[in-house]
Amino acid sequence: MSLEKRFTEHFNKIKGYEEAIALLFWDLRTGAPKKGVELRSETIGTLSAEVFSLSTSDEFGELLTSLEADQLKNPIIRRSVEEARKDYDLSKKIPPEEYKKFVILKSKAESVWETAKENSDFSLFLPYLEDLVSTTKKMVGYWGEKNGSTYNTLLDQYEPGMTTEILDEVFGKLRERIVPLVRKIAASPNKPETAFLYEHFSKQAQQDFSREMLEQLGYDFEAGRLDETVHPFMISINRQDIRVTTKYDESDFRTAVFGTIHEGGHAMYEQNLGDDLAGLPIETGASMGIHESQSLFCENFIGRNEHFWQKNFDLLKDYAPDQFASVELVDYVRAINESKPSLIRIEADELSYALHVMVRYELEKGLFNGDLKVSDLPQLWNDKYEEYLGVRPSNDAEGVLQDVHWAGASFGYFPSYALGYMYAAQFKNAMLKELPNYDELLAERNITPIREWLTNNIHQYGAFKKPMDILKDVTGEGLNPDYLADYLEEKYTKIYQLNE
Amino acid sequence: MSLEKRFTEHFNKIKGYEEAIALLFWDLRTGAPKKGVELRSETIGTLSAEVFSLSTSDEFGELLTSLEADQLKNPIIRRSVEEARKDYDLSKKIPPEEYKKFVILKSKAESVWETAKENSDFSLFLPYLEDLVSTTKKMVGYWGEKNGSTYNTLLDQYEPGMTTEILDEVFGKLRERIVPLVRKIAASPNKPETAFLYEHFSKQAQQDFSREMLEQLGYDFEAGRLDETVHPFMISINRQDIRVTTKYDESDFRTAVFGTIHEGGHAMYEQNLGDDLAGLPIETGASMGIHESQSLFCENFIGRNEHFWQKNFDLLKDYAPDQFASVELVDYVRAINESKPSLIRIEADELSYALHVMVRYELEKGLFNGDLKVSDLPQLWNDKYEEYLGVRPSNDAEGVLQDVHWAGASFGYFPSYALGYMYAAQFKNAMLKELPNYDELLAERNITPIREWLTNNIHQYGAFKKPMDILKDVTGEGLNPDYLADYLEEKYTKIYQLNE
Repeated sequence: MSLEKRFTEHFNKIKGYEEAIALLFWDLRTGAPKKGVELRSETIGTLSAEVFSLSTSDEFGELLTSLEADQLKNPIIRRSVEEARKDYDLSKKIPPEEYKKFVILKSKAESVWETAKENSDFSLFLPYLEDLVSTTKKMVGYWGEKNGSTYNTLLDQYEPGMTTEILDEVFGKLRERIVPLVRKIAASPNKPETAFLYEHFSKQAQQDFSREMLEQLGYDFEAGRLDETVHPFMISINRQDIRVTTKYDESDFRTAVFGTIHEGGHAMYEQNLGDDLAGLPIETGASMGIHESQSLFCENFIGRNEHFWQKNFDLLKDYAPDQFASVELVDYVRAINESKPSLIRIEADELSYALHVMVRYELEKGLFNGDLKVSDLPQLWNDKYEEYLGVRPSNDAEGVLQDVHWAGASFGYFPSYALGYMYAAQFKNAMLKELPNYDELLAERNITPIREWLTNNIHQYGAFKKPMDILKDVTGEGLNPDYLADYLEEKYTKIYQLNE
Repeated sequence: MSLEKRFTEHFNKIKGYEEAIALLFWDLRTGAPKKGVELRSETIGTLSAEVFSLSTSDEFGELLTSLEADQLKNPIIRRSVEEARKDYDLSKKIPPEEYKKFVILKSKAESVWETAKENSDFSLFLPYLEDLVSTTKKMVGYWGEKNGSTYNTLLDQYEPGMTTEILDEVFGKLRERIVPLVRKIAASPNKPETAFLYEHFSKQAQQDFSREMLEQLGYDFEAGRLDETVHPFMISINRQDIRVTTKYDESDFRTAVFGTIHEGGHAMYEQNLGDDLAGLPIETGASMGIHESQSLFCENFIGRNEHFWQKNFDLLKDYAPDQFASVELVDYVRAINESKPSLIRIEADELSYALHVMVRYELEKGLFNGDLKVSDLPQLWNDKYEEYLGVRPSNDAEGVLQDVHWAGASFGYFPSYALGYMYAAQFKNAMLKELPNYDELLAERNITPIREWLTNNIHQYGAFKKPMDILKDVTGEGLNPDYLADYLEEKYTKIYQLNE
């Protein structure tokens, strides 16, 4: 068997295991009976251990070495080998015993974090977080530093090529423009009326409307499905089975509608990956940030665009006639674009979201590159929220303990969320050059040209291209936060009539 | 690690794979998007191959040999080793190349059978069926004959200990009593009125009522769920996750209601297996026939019992008030117990079902123990239907091609269905000695004592006891077809007022 054939067969096998694991997980989150959960978790563990052992076998390591020594003509295979090598080294460079200890530590830390959050008591979580930070630093020692610092090594795992040098600059610029805008909005007397958003909207009607939204986006229901869950997610079961989940809140339909559109954006990315990537390790999104750019593009640049609702608001009225009977389109659009600084990241609006991320970014950078102590986190967290958002947490549960990421040692992940916003705005700007009638397309509910543009420029490449290369190829420049800042300024000036 | 520990760990791992495979299959049958099916099938193939290789490894063979040489004190482990040996030999004695060819033959034969059935053309299927029969005979050569004949070897795989000697006797006796009853019913002027059965009954209401039925049986919804499918089945995902599927026909509610009760019977067996069997190969039903006895017990001895409907008929009326408004309980019970000889086994009623099985049994016996040729099957099939049931198929689709079993080389499986009826009737008779108020319990919808009796006498043992031992322990005698015959005579004499 040729080296390439052995390589693709190896990944076919891994993809089989991954499909099983993904379905076991999806089922667990969408309706598996509760008594079966414990055994289910063991089963996921058994299969994950198999994948780990397949991915780190000496035999596979030798295959990679042989492939690297070979003159690989197919660029897709070459890039796949590069990606496989990165993953292989990430796992293989850690001594197995330490890897196992780390997995156990993370699992324990997550359950301690839950308790700590419930009791709003950071001190319970403190020793675990200290252990997680020091163990992660040790892991970086095994991996070898990338791009000159410990924290850059971590950033690179979620956003290949991303560094604190880039982030410091773009976050700085962005903050300079967002913070004054947040202040102006807070001071504006022209607040949207939002009471009607919270009226009763039946779950069944929300579900039907959410399906309509996915259909409009061009989500392929023959290669996916929509289900209910507690914490919504998109999951790729196999390349022709990309599932969306959502949550229904009968006193706030926005949770389901915008949540579904958001996950639908992730799903369309996966549904539109190129066929030439089939079965390979690069058959996935380019990075966390690029993935998030696609969900945010759908959620905000489509879903929260006033033109999109020109016809869809009437459709919405069909599903909840009483609720919106006396509401004008313009007031509806203002309401769904309300901006209000808050303490909780996952509840944040489009404008203030990036500020939540910056707080986390600066703290992580201090922990890994500076001399910030874990015990300093709660105080610093609260101070930064006050500085950037003008609100101060009154306890740890709504402050430093709100997110699970650190308990899973996902240090370096948070910046991807804000990058997603910036990428999306920058893509939108590039798209406008080819689709200057963008708003008209939305008004006509003709999303096809938009989706095709995204597929041609982004989706089809999967992880064949790196995020920075995609950005460069699509927009002709590097990361530039001005597009997001311009968009937010223009939008919120109008929504809050800041010039009047 | 001790031998026993290695043995249980081996099966824990296999159970993990089996959980994944079961869920992949369940999902495929309950709503997986159609474009993902092809990849899904490959994934099931990949994981099944892993299970096969785990189950037939030389290492596991050596472990079995060591365990057999050991003085195993724990009878559950001893019996598990015996069962594991049986499965191991079944797979291992076949040369791998021939095993693979057989798997491919079966897979091809199933798709050819589909086409043949669609075209009602046995000649398309003929060469495949010939190959399946001769290959199966060759397999028996590898396995070694059991209980003195080729066909007995096959019977033993589904119903340990079952032989043609036993079946010839019990089927003969049963036929002698059923055939005259079928004739009398056909001649009876007292046919039940059934038109009201076919009125529109909404799917949602059927689903709610089906759930009620499962609740009444004592099915544990915290360790299972009910879903919709095309060909209903029960499936064990893990020991705390036993799922039921059903089908809704809006112009015949019986499909869902009795189908759900039937699968619920299978599910309760699996839900009530003893905890001491956890993770072992004997954590499953004792045989196909015993499993079927439990589903049939629920479907017929509970679900079609007139007393069960005493209160439940009013409940049914709540779900479809118009349909049953002018129907009396007695007429409802007569209608759901209608008996009419038909051509299709899966549509057969309680009375004539066993006759459908006998036709297949005699043909299979002739193919494997006698000199019956595959090409003779269609003619013989039709003749036997005319003889036993008084109806004659007009083509192969409604005759010899109706069932998929032979395409999958499941020779020896059919008798288990009829055995299930006989076991169930015999169990019922034994139960009556301890629960003489059986009918009253049903009338009060107090199924608990009945379920507990089944659990104590049957469910808890799983495959620890062999089917004939269960029968002996529970009823004090061997297989006796008179209990079923007595029950049918009594029941149908009343329904069709044959004495009047």
